Amino acid sequence: MKAALYQGAGTMVCSEVPGSHPGENEVRIRVGSCGICGTDLHIFLGHMDKRVSIPQSIGHEMSGVIAEVGPGVTGWKPGDRVTVRPLDNCGECPTCKRGFTWICEKLKFLGIDTPGAFAEYWTVPARLLHRIPDNLTLETAALIEPLAVACHDVRRGGVKPGDHVIVSGGGPIGMLIAMVAKMAGGNVTLLEVNPSRLEFARKLGFQAVDARDTSAVAPADVFFEVSGSKPGALAMTALTRPRGTIVVVAIFPEPVPVDLHKYFWKELNVFGARVYEAEDFDRAIALAASGKLPLDKIITKVFPLEQAQEAFSFLASGSGDAMKVLIRISGEEK
Amino acid sequence: MKAALYQGAGTMVCSEVPGSHPGENEVRIRVGSCGICGTDLHIFLGHMDKRVSIPQSIGHEMSGVIAEVGPGVTGWKPGDRVTVRPLDNCGECPTCKRGFTWICEKLKFLGIDTPGAFAEYWTVPARLLHRIPDNLTLETAALIEPLAVACHDVRRGGVKPGDHVIVSGGGPIGMLIAMVAKMAGGNVTLLEVNPSRLEFARKLGFQAVDARDTSAVAPADVFFEVSGSKPGALAMTALTRPRGTIVVVAIFPEPVPVDLHKYFWKELNVFGARVYEAEDFDRAIALAASGKLPLDKIITKVFPLEQAQEAFSFLASGSGDAMKVLIRISGEEK
Repeated sequence: MKAALYQGAGTMVCSEVPGSHPGENEVRIRVGSCGICGTDLHIFLGHMDKRVSIPQSIGHEMSGVIAEVGPGVTGWKPGDRVTVRPLDNCGECPTCKRGFTWICEKLKFLGIDTPGAFAEYWTVPARLLHRIPDNLTLETAALIEPLAVACHDVRRGGVKPGDHVIVSGGGPIGMLIAMVAKMAGGNVTLLEVNPSRLEFARKLGFQAVDARDTSAVAPADVFFEVSGSKPGALAMTALTRPRGTIVVVAIFPEPVPVDLHKYFWKELNVFGARVYEAEDFDRAIALAASGKLPLDKIITKVFPLEQAQEAFSFLASGSGDAMKVLIRISGEEK
Repeated sequence: MKAALYQGAGTMVCSEVPGSHPGENEVRIRVGSCGICGTDLHIFLGHMDKRVSIPQSIGHEMSGVIAEVGPGVTGWKPGDRVTVRPLDNCGECPTCKRGFTWICEKLKFLGIDTPGAFAEYWTVPARLLHRIPDNLTLETAALIEPLAVACHDVRRGGVKPGDHVIVSGGGPIGMLIAMVAKMAGGNVTLLEVNPSRLEFARKLGFQAVDARDTSAVAPADVFFEVSGSKPGALAMTALTRPRGTIVVVAIFPEPVPVDLHKYFWKELNVFGARVYEAEDFDRAIALAASGKLPLDKIITKVFPLEQAQEAFSFLASGSGDAMKVLIRISGEEK
């Protein structure tokens, strides 16, 4: 089968690799579409060579159709349209035993720690499957995984109807959080510095404000820090009301100055949020199927598998204007 | 009446000042004892001259006996032994209206923003009184206010029986948090760098570890950051388990580096905690009256009101070995 293999910093090569039948309790999925995650981009740029094998296929924001089910699999059959919650937890560590399986201390992230879905077929444990409703195309369904991230974040933030929600950072995850928070009844203000992202957010119907001048922005009931920037780490405490909630979504590569005095003074609630639980996938699927989110507008460009290198280079060379870049693989739909 | 007046950085003068009858809904209390809070020390050192009038009496960690009740006061009479929850909130700001009266946006802290209890008499609103049980001396009862801080912090941290609790910082508030967390069923490890504080914590029965080598310390279920130090701000994320809770108690004068990646990776819960609610005072009084806490051991030295200058200088000149310094005023008991 064909797969796009990461071959070292800046290089993604579409190659022929051996296929295989699914093992016990596994299914083999013919991949429909697969989005490029920020983490995939980090891998492409060589930032994660300590974690990722070379050569290796990557990719996990996918949709597809079951091609073959392995021994022991029940409830799934070839032809079923599915997406995958790509978290393989150990079940044995203290964190798993406490029930927080999605942040397992030995978590294997499928498509990062194992081969991924920028390939014609992807073989995964059947227990990680979620069914795609008939009214969702495989292309839109490739957005379910990042949408589940947003659902998890919004749930962690406890957004309630009428809440003023600030989303700091207008990349794909920021935009999806804004959409999900709006569906939860929040009044969303998005903060960004990139003019084209500000413009994009406004086209989606959000109030969008230049993050460098927030003097007119009302304090947030719930603030999502998705920018991963030093100004964002200070804005989160400045722009949240007393006893308000901050959700730290962004990945900060190193410690940054944080105004802990404001934690104390305003008795802030600050929660870290990472990936998702099964129920976040269920919620994401329901939201996507509702047709109420402008999900397809997030898809900036679609490339075929053979142009994986071009797809990654397009995203890497942009100035942050692009939202989601997809690779269409089996192309059966849309 | 006599009162110790703050006269500018480093100067506390015991002077004769006019007394007054209590106004409507007020009581006048003959002060028994009053402890020196860390904030009082900051005032003495001149750090808060923008907030505090000069000259002004300060002090709020007090106990006493009602001397006179003003018009409209019900439920209290002269001779009642009381302590005061020194928070005068506005009742009108959005934070008060949400019910978070103790972090009112226009909070007046009695004894900081108004004259205080290092004086023979203190006049306060009757609604802020709490009754002192008969079996508590006025001297021990002067510890109820800082103990209420600890009760609020432990409640905010949600300490449960069997939790491993780390308290970073072994000053008076850290020691009181350790005591209250232990009463809540926590197994407490205290982190400090001052050898005499480490020794003191061990004498109180706590596991105490040099904060500069925590390699053998198990991760906390609940971590209290009370040190207000840069190493403490990094230790809090390093030493808390996945989905564990951090309570930021310390007052950090400026932003410090915080490892937000660990918020994300471990999905930490981080709560700021400030002062107390009425129920924290009730809990503190019940705990103090139970006799189960080694409260009196926290009292390092007691000075008479006339030696207020010496009391503050003693605390200011120490190397952090002293715990609580009290000023005994009416001296009716103990």
